[in-house]
Amino acid sequence: MYAQGWIGMPVEQIPTPALVVDVEKLDRNLATMADYLARVKTNIRPHAKTHKTPAIGHKQMRAGAIGLCCATVGEAEVMVYSGIPEVMIANEIVDPLSVRRAVNLARQARVLMIVDDPENVRNIGAAARQYGAMVDVLVDLDVGQGRCGARSLEALVELAREVERTKGIRLRGVFGYEGHVQFIPDRQERTAKGQDANGRLVRAAKELSGLGMNIEIVSGAGTGTYDIAGEFPGITEIQAGSYIFMDGTYQKLGLPFEQSLTVLATVVSRPAADIAVFDVGLKGISPERFNPSVQNCGTGAIEVKSLSEEHSVTRLSDAADPRPGDKMHFIPSHCCTTVNLYDSMFVVRQGRVEAIWPVAARRA
Amino acid sequence: MYAQGWIGMPVEQIPTPALVVDVEKLDRNLATMADYLARVKTNIRPHAKTHKTPAIGHKQMRAGAIGLCCATVGEAEVMVYSGIPEVMIANEIVDPLSVRRAVNLARQARVLMIVDDPENVRNIGAAARQYGAMVDVLVDLDVGQGRCGARSLEALVELAREVERTKGIRLRGVFGYEGHVQFIPDRQERTAKGQDANGRLVRAAKELSGLGMNIEIVSGAGTGTYDIAGEFPGITEIQAGSYIFMDGTYQKLGLPFEQSLTVLATVVSRPAADIAVFDVGLKGISPERFNPSVQNCGTGAIEVKSLSEEHSVTRLSDAADPRPGDKMHFIPSHCCTTVNLYDSMFVVRQGRVEAIWPVAARRA
Repeated sequence: MYAQGWIGMPVEQIPTPALVVDVEKLDRNLATMADYLARVKTNIRPHAKTHKTPAIGHKQMRAGAIGLCCATVGEAEVMVYSGIPEVMIANEIVDPLSVRRAVNLARQARVLMIVDDPENVRNIGAAARQYGAMVDVLVDLDVGQGRCGARSLEALVELAREVERTKGIRLRGVFGYEGHVQFIPDRQERTAKGQDANGRLVRAAKELSGLGMNIEIVSGAGTGTYDIAGEFPGITEIQAGSYIFMDGTYQKLGLPFEQSLTVLATVVSRPAADIAVFDVGLKGISPERFNPSVQNCGTGAIEVKSLSEEHSVTRLSDAADPRPGDKMHFIPSHCCTTVNLYDSMFVVRQGRVEAIWPVAARRA
Repeated sequence: MYAQGWIGMPVEQIPTPALVVDVEKLDRNLATMADYLARVKTNIRPHAKTHKTPAIGHKQMRAGAIGLCCATVGEAEVMVYSGIPEVMIANEIVDPLSVRRAVNLARQARVLMIVDDPENVRNIGAAARQYGAMVDVLVDLDVGQGRCGARSLEALVELAREVERTKGIRLRGVFGYEGHVQFIPDRQERTAKGQDANGRLVRAAKELSGLGMNIEIVSGAGTGTYDIAGEFPGITEIQAGSYIFMDGTYQKLGLPFEQSLTVLATVVSRPAADIAVFDVGLKGISPERFNPSVQNCGTGAIEVKSLSEEHSVTRLSDAADPRPGDKMHFIPSHCCTTVNLYDSMFVVRQGRVEAIWPVAARRA
């Protein structure tokens, strides 16, 4: 709460490195997504792994989301205890403690889980009966990503049968995330591969329905495929997360969302004419796809050449001449893993701090 | 404090992903370093950026450290407020708020700062006079890393003169970190390049001493060069940090330290015979140099092929057959950035949790 003393101050005065969100851009991103989905009549259950921040989860609910996706039981707990009425834990939950937590959470809110292993199904069912909770379950189909999920329709049918046989849990639908398609830069290729993945999921859903199973939910898609899945007949909801912030990776796709998230950093050294060192490194921005870019509001380009734990070493073009103490905004290549490095974010409107939001589910 | 309920439990029962430190190995690493440095009569001011954990900082002090290095003012504050009597902030501190914090901290403990910019020197001096603190200063020489630090002896002499001219601060020595040498796998090449860097630093120290300046401290080295600098005439202290934990990068160097730090993870999916997916990803282990390795205590090799936010996808050799729910220890390629992802670490002795230490300076 001490940090709240920054509220009302110009963003340039906050301590760096700092996670900064432009709330006007964030709100426009929420509206852009909501308008689109209203038009195509598809639901969104936005992925809270991107922000881990209840204040943003509630903004998403007010913008029409039917619930949130979470990546871990801890995230789901934080969102439920902050008042979110329905969460889908969009990853397999296996170890006994985590299963116990997820099932107990289902006594406090609607909880959906995904499964890809029959024994896990039986364990979740046993826990649900033990604690007297009803858990909704989706069966997970690998639609080409090659991570979790049943690898064949036969395996998926077996899994769904196991869910139906198991007391204490209830089959609600199918789940399939086309993670391998999200970043394909060519729009045509992305569309083709996204439709292929969506097609596999929808065909599986129809197969299960045809067997008399209860398939209300057909869930897929991320920010890179939101409008491919959004218009694909049979997909009932999408799981996009990054659209609220954007990042260097998604910027390359020409999406209608604005870059609302940056990391503010300070020049701490100018050891040579063409080098500036900033105070943000691997502990303050994630460079796992490529190095961050720098929004230089002066003249000349500033290119990040390397990052160490607390430093970015940048190369300056002739015209660029930042001085020690100057502050600039960095754009990460991946928003989700960058947010995960911070306990709070500075919420800025028109250059002044309006709020500080706790990233409450950071390591929950 | 709720988490303390895990104390006494077998490590396999703690929730994953979890940061785990084997305290017996940690203690042996501390003893190995202390024994070596006693023999060569060189001091150590271990770098707290590696652990960000007061409990470990105090172990280092008890093992003979003359103080701690910190990477940020926040780390220094946490260490001082937990009782560490002397800290060196081993990075340039430039923005006015951070300078104010560092100088005020110098009223509560001995604080050493490093500088590479004359204007920064004057700003630190002005703040020191304003708040009535005495700050010790080292001038930073680039010894080949190409990050911060004066790029020439002339620039270093100018900088040292500026420090001597400035009231409120006191010149104590020279600082030069040979970061570019740490990971050179070949021992001979590492030694040659380390000695070259140490030589530059010691020559600079002698030059400043010859000009009548006060050079008590000549500080360099990390874990990869601890015994190169430790035996180099004129180096008075080393700044190694990773030797307490080790990691996949330092393991390749054949150092006498043990791997005390791991990340415990659970198998959450076995979607195919040769694939296992674990519940640790980019948010729980840093793969910035290369993918983590898996300590498989059964038979067969488990190789990490890719990481997403909460998953590691591994390829199994024929003999390996981990089941969903099985737990294994991962070794990160970089310990410091992995520790930075956690708020606490599970301290294990003989397979049982003995303590939970807060990583109190994580995002301080």
